[in-house]
Amino acid sequence: MTQLILLSGGLDSSVALGTASEPRIALSVNYGQRHRASELKAAERMAALYEVEHYVLDLTSWGALLPGGSLTDGGVEVPDGMYDAPSMAITVVPNRNATLLMAAVGVAQAHGIDTVVTAVHAGDHTIYADCRPDFIKAARTTAKLATEGAVDISAPFIKMSKGDIAKLGFKHGVPLYATWSCYKGGAIQCGTCGTCTERREAFSDAGISDPTPYLVP
Amino acid sequence: MTQLILLSGGLDSSVALGTASEPRIALSVNYGQRHRASELKAAERMAALYEVEHYVLDLTSWGALLPGGSLTDGGVEVPDGMYDAPSMAITVVPNRNATLLMAAVGVAQAHGIDTVVTAVHAGDHTIYADCRPDFIKAARTTAKLATEGAVDISAPFIKMSKGDIAKLGFKHGVPLYATWSCYKGGAIQCGTCGTCTERREAFSDAGISDPTPYLVP
Repeated sequence: MTQLILLSGGLDSSVALGTASEPRIALSVNYGQRHRASELKAAERMAALYEVEHYVLDLTSWGALLPGGSLTDGGVEVPDGMYDAPSMAITVVPNRNATLLMAAVGVAQAHGIDTVVTAVHAGDHTIYADCRPDFIKAARTTAKLATEGAVDISAPFIKMSKGDIAKLGFKHGVPLYATWSCYKGGAIQCGTCGTCTERREAFSDAGISDPTPYLVP
Repeated sequence: MTQLILLSGGLDSSVALGTASEPRIALSVNYGQRHRASELKAAERMAALYEVEHYVLDLTSWGALLPGGSLTDGGVEVPDGMYDAPSMAITVVPNRNATLLMAAVGVAQAHGIDTVVTAVHAGDHTIYADCRPDFIKAARTTAKLATEGAVDISAPFIKMSKGDIAKLGFKHGVPLYATWSCYKGGAIQCGTCGTCTERREAFSDAGISDPTPYLVP
């Protein structure tokens, strides 16, 4: 099994890379997300650390056709609060995972890689429909049919919590502190947006001290 | 039902646009395909004729990560011959339809459009796995799960031949002569590549005279 890892530079996908058996390519995506600068820098560092080829796919043209969401529309604020609160629906990027997965499957096939790894996990399911097990199952079928079985999708964390992932990463020596979660795109992570809240909770659940500097400690 | 039409500017998708009940957006894609200039110009004319909003999605960064195919790799020639010959496999763009469909589903959802229309047809099935009915079925499931039922995919020509499509378009007054099929990207269509061969056969099967100027008449 050879792997292409969809690597955002966040905690989950960094652990996916750090625990993959035969990673060949890390693929990051710039879709104009507000926090792209910090996120892509973290991804680049992580790919370099694990010595895999790193590509950044430019989907800014796609992001520009998605008005109304807080990650791709500069006029819409990123909300603070719990990551599974209804208010977080504004952070949904329409059909993001399917689009990124299918683009990644094409890149994998062109490079003779047989598996695309996505780091979606159980905690994502409440708000993000495209992180649920039935979605992943349908996406796998789609990929396998389109590539005549050449490329499959793997979601190793689909039943794990973010705390479980942090624990796994810690055990494997993944430098969790060097990952980027915050949606707001400031110079340091805010500590209060949905994804920062979730990150802090994950460290706490895993019983690991969190060395991340936050704007609001 | 409101529709987003994936519009290449070729015969099939132009007929899909010209026969759609409530088309709102025509979405064309530049993935660095060799024939993009002529293809996108044809798409623009067609969208203007049918008075739908026209967007060109720039996926050149994706195409650049797909080495080895004759449409996206300048070093690989477009073959002449029958469109369903094994030699045409070199014109396959890895996972193109899934990638384009999923990107389009996101755009549709962001714009409150409930259906993405793709013009894949029965004649495409031999070479292109991502034009087959089981693929379309899986892609529909994927899209519906990811958007919680907000967006479906429609493939109205899935059981039709290209000749049937030409006949349908002719009946509806779609200006078939103004569509672009040729993969080679010259100033006029070559008349000998797989897709030109298929186009000429479609006019002939439909019993319609073909006013397209070809390099090889």
